[in-house]
Amino acid sequence: MSDRETTLLEIKSRVLEFVRVRDWERFHSPKNLSMALAAEAAELMEHFLWDTPEASIERAENEAVADELADIVIYAIEFANITGIDLSKAIENKMAKNAEKYPVEKARGNALKYTDL
Amino acid sequence: MSDRETTLLEIKSRVLEFVRVRDWERFHSPKNLSMALAAEAAELMEHFLWDTPEASIERAENEAVADELADIVIYAIEFANITGIDLSKAIENKMAKNAEKYPVEKARGNALKYTDL
Amino acid sequence: MSDRETTLLEIKSRVLEFVRVRDWERFHSPKNLSMALAAEAAELMEHFLWDTPEASIERAENEAVADELADIVIYAIEFANITGIDLSKAIENKMAKNAEKYPVEKARGNALKYTDL
Amino acid sequence: MSDRETTLLEIKSRVLEFVRVRDWERFHSPKNLSMALAAEAAELMEHFLWDTPEASIERAENEAVADELADIVIYAIEFANITGIDLSKAIENKMAKNAEKYPVEKARGNALKYTDL
Repeated sequence: MSDRETTLLEIKSRVLEFVRVRDWERFHSPKNLSMALAAEAAELMEHFLWDTPEASIERAENEAVADELADIVIYAIEFANITGIDLSKAIENKMAKNAEKYPVEKARGNALKYTDL
Repeated sequence: MSDRETTLLEIKSRVLEFVRVRDWERFHSPKNLSMALAAEAAELMEHFLWDTPEASIERAENEAVADELADIVIYAIEFANITGIDLSKAIENKMAKNAEKYPVEKARGNALKYTDL
Repeated sequence: MSDRETTLLEIKSRVLEFVRVRDWERFHSPKNLSMALAAEAAELMEHFLWDTPEASIERAENEAVADELADIVIYAIEFANITGIDLSKAIENKMAKNAEKYPVEKARGNALKYTDL
Repeated sequence: MSDRETTLLEIKSRVLEFVRVRDWERFHSPKNLSMALAAEAAELMEHFLWDTPEASIERAENEAVADELADIVIYAIEFANITGIDLSKAIENKMAKNAEKYPVEKARGNALKYTDL
C-alpha cells in the first residue's frame, strides 16, 4: 500500500472488516467514536508537549508518531463508515468553505482566525 | 471526487496546494498541527456532548458534523505532508499492530483495553 | 486536607513549590500548559470511552479516575500560577456570564447551547 | 472572592447550585462531564495554536483566556460534585504519586517522562 495508489474506499473497507470481525460496531456510536478520535489526537499531541515547535520536527520522525497519526485516521475512517459520510466529498466541500473563509490575498503568511482577517 | 476513486495522494496534493498558496507552512510544525488536530477533534465531539450514544446517530447526519470530520482529516493529511509520512503504510502498519493487540477470539464483542484482555 | 478548609491559594502554593524545586517553570508557557491540560482531560475521558453514560457512574469510583481529575486541576492551578490569574475571581466572573447566557427559565432541564435557546 | 480566602467547598457549592436550579444534573454523567472538560481544555488551547511558546505569555493576559480556564475548573469541580470526590485529597494523593515518579534530583530541569528518567 502507498498513498499514490490507495483509495479512501480501500482503507474504509479494511477498517470496516477489522471492526466487523471483532463485533465492535455495537460500541461505535458517533458519540463514542468522537471521544476516541479526541483521545487519539491527544496522544499524538503528548509527544510534543514540552518541545519547541522546531524540536518537534525531529521528534516527528519516530515510528510512535506515525502510529498515533494512523490511529486518528483509522477512527476518522470508521466514523465515516458508520455514518455513511463520503470523506472525499466532505473534504472537498469543507476545503471550498475554508477557501472562502481564508481568501489567499488576506490569509497569506498570517495565522489569524478568519473572524479577525 | 468520491471515496471510490480518490487516492490519498490526491487529497494530500490538494491540501498541500491550499497551504502553500497561503504561505502557512511556516506555522505547521508537528507540535502546532497536533494541537490543531486535537482542537478539531474536540469540535466534532462537542456536537455530541449531552447526547445519549443512540441520539448521536441522528445528529451525525448534520452537515456540520461532516465538516468537522473533514477538518480533522485535512489536518491529519497536512501532518503527513509536512512530516513525509506515507499514511497508507502507517495505517497498514498500525492495523497489523492493533490486530496483534486485539486478537479476534479475545476481543470479539467486548471493549476491554488490550492490557485487560 | 479537605475541600472544606483548603483554600485555592494553599493548593496554588503547593503546586508552585512542586514545580519550582524541579526547575520546570522553563517549560510552562501558557501554550505548553494548555496542551498538558488537554492531554490530561483526554486521559480522564479515555476511562469512559465505551461506557454508557449510566455505566460511567460506577467506573468513576476508581481511584485512577480521581487521579486523572487531580492532574487536570493541578495543571489548571499551575496555569493560574504562571499567568497570575486569580482563579476564584475568574470563576466568579465566568459564572456570572454563564448565568446570563443560560437564564434559569430558559435553560431548565434542557441541554441546548445558549445560541439555540 | 479571592484565592486567598476561597475554599474549594465554597466553589463546589456555587457550581452545585448553578447546576441544580437549571436541572442539569440529569446530563452530568461522568462520561459526559469528561467530554465537556476535554472540549473546554481544547478551547483554551485554541488561543495558542499558532503562537510560539514565548508569544503565548502575552496572549494569556486576555480575559478570554481566564474565561476558558474558569470553564475547565468549573467542570472539574462539577465532576467532583457528582462523583463525591474530595478534590483537595485527590490532589494531595496525586501530588505524592507525582513526587515519587519525578524525584527532584532526577527530574530537575528536564522534561522527560518518568518512564524515561
